Amino acid sequence: MIGWEDVYKVVVAMVPLYVALVLGYGSVKWWGIFTPEQCDAINRLVCYFTLPLFTIEFTSHIDPFEMNYRFIGADTVSKLVIVVVLAFWAKFSSKGSYCWSITSFSLSTLTNALVVGVPLMKAMYGQTGVDLVVQSSVIQGIIWLTFLLFVLEFRRSGVSIAATDGEGQEKDVEGNTNGDGELSSRPSFAYLMKVVGMKLAMNPNSYACVIGLAWAFVSNRWHFEMPSIIDGSILIMSKAGTGTAMFSMGTFMALQEKIIACGTSLTIFGMVLRFIAGPAAMAIGAIVVGLHGDVLRVAIIQAALPQSITSFIFAKEYGMHAEVLSTAVIFGTIVSLPVLVAYYAILEFIN
Amino acid sequence: MIGWEDVYKVVVAMVPLYVALVLGYGSVKWWGIFTPEQCDAINRLVCYFTLPLFTIEFTSHIDPFEMNYRFIGADTVSKLVIVVVLAFWAKFSSKGSYCWSITSFSLSTLTNALVVGVPLMKAMYGQTGVDLVVQSSVIQGIIWLTFLLFVLEFRRSGVSIAATDGEGQEKDVEGNTNGDGELSSRPSFAYLMKVVGMKLAMNPNSYACVIGLAWAFVSNRWHFEMPSIIDGSILIMSKAGTGTAMFSMGTFMALQEKIIACGTSLTIFGMVLRFIAGPAAMAIGAIVVGLHGDVLRVAIIQAALPQSITSFIFAKEYGMHAEVLSTAVIFGTIVSLPVLVAYYAILEFIN
Repeated sequence: MIGWEDVYKVVVAMVPLYVALVLGYGSVKWWGIFTPEQCDAINRLVCYFTLPLFTIEFTSHIDPFEMNYRFIGADTVSKLVIVVVLAFWAKFSSKGSYCWSITSFSLSTLTNALVVGVPLMKAMYGQTGVDLVVQSSVIQGIIWLTFLLFVLEFRRSGVSIAATDGEGQEKDVEGNTNGDGELSSRPSFAYLMKVVGMKLAMNPNSYACVIGLAWAFVSNRWHFEMPSIIDGSILIMSKAGTGTAMFSMGTFMALQEKIIACGTSLTIFGMVLRFIAGPAAMAIGAIVVGLHGDVLRVAIIQAALPQSITSFIFAKEYGMHAEVLSTAVIFGTIVSLPVLVAYYAILEFIN
Repeated sequence: MIGWEDVYKVVVAMVPLYVALVLGYGSVKWWGIFTPEQCDAINRLVCYFTLPLFTIEFTSHIDPFEMNYRFIGADTVSKLVIVVVLAFWAKFSSKGSYCWSITSFSLSTLTNALVVGVPLMKAMYGQTGVDLVVQSSVIQGIIWLTFLLFVLEFRRSGVSIAATDGEGQEKDVEGNTNGDGELSSRPSFAYLMKVVGMKLAMNPNSYACVIGLAWAFVSNRWHFEMPSIIDGSILIMSKAGTGTAMFSMGTFMALQEKIIACGTSLTIFGMVLRFIAGPAAMAIGAIVVGLHGDVLRVAIIQAALPQSITSFIFAKEYGMHAEVLSTAVIFGTIVSLPVLVAYYAILEFIN
């Protein structure tokens, strides 16, 4: 049975994240410390330095030979369930659309695993929880964000083709950036993978994930430790990761005209996908592979973490329901504390 | 006898600071990530958030009833020795000047105690070293920076009077900002203290020091711990303190036209005051109060830490040899690693 002291421990772990968020929000909205251009600087500091090093720090300390493959299996099954459901919906429902399927996939599967997940899991389930949430963040960073980028690029090329074929004119939507006319033929898998690969290679968090994992493989295969001088050099910036990331999200919130940018019904839609559909799919995955005990609990709770910030960045870049994902990130992060505590309390009754 | 492993431990503690510094420098100079205005944003993030919370974090954990008063006595004696020497020089030497006395005081006494001192002392002398360097940073923040502000304000008023009296005209140097004409009478101690008080109240690091110390008094007097939820909220930003402060200093370096802004002879002058005169005065103070062992070593080494960044900020604000202090901060921080390691090795032979 979970007592008040357990709940308090979780609150103690989460409140500092909100404090950093409010400091960021207040510094723009109330105290006028940062102009919008200056907020961009803080975002860049987070995006290029503190967050990638934070990712490297956690990823490089996992043991890829001792991952919990059942847990990862459950995670994969849950995502496949969602993909299949959304694909069916897009294909056979009258209301279905490829675009909304992609957004729904983002909303129901991609979480802010490291920044919020690590302190939360530490408070709830100790090191076991942290290890699992880091593993799921690695899989998310390497497989699922790549998958998302791929379908986004596919849609973009598809739009181009539709524009050229359908309207019978030379100008295509993306033609100005891809002047070689290659896009007028149906894009090949190899071409799309190249574009996606380029995008990932430009994304500091993607290669942080790859570098961290590569190091984890090498160090665990040949059993050597990271020299403390390198570890310290990563730590000095990575320790700033959580605080500056939440602070930066606060400045981002303050720059929006409204906290809820996309209307009530879409907000509810996003919250349902994030906090109910995601964990429900994970529960299905967990049943399929037969998880139980704390691993089961961690699996379900980590599926109910707030929305991944990267998913919003991609949505903005590809012009696809960015306001829905912005709301999911902002509003979702605000309301996640009681939701996660509720899951924590309820899951205690499951074995 | 100090072995290579001890020296290596110190290097391991210091190199991450330089890595953060180089990342900051490179992000402006090589990679063009930040514009000058954006660097200002990072500086503000450090100045208003991460560094004050870093100061509160360390200051609030000292026990003001168990400070090492001998150590503080030695520190005080050393500063008084410097003040007396500089006052004599200003009064009786043909080359003496009040302005250069103030700058020399800054250069020989004010150190970057927390950001560089804490990791360094931890590597050299463990918790004892950290406790002492935090104590000296508190005294510096509360007494010596106030003293510096006081003499700077005094000089500013003095200049105003000289301008009015000497040149027999109404316009005084600062008259435009103090339009009420009060400055034409010799400024009273009370008036100066009010101005200094206002300055300190506007300086986030000053009140961070006061808040931290106040908390330390209250919690040690009535024996209660800081609630972990508040401690965590401070920690989330304070953990970012070291990394972001060094990063910000790197961006500051990159924005300067030259690393050495003030010519070779003034650079050498600054380095001699910082790395030789300061520790020498501290040695005198230590002998007077009879320090020995690790406390003596900590006292001397902490007097040889790199130049305080606040002292540069004040110099810039009061238009007083800012380029000399900028060089002392930048060049001094770069060269401090071998100097401090040398002190560490040499002091091993002293008891």
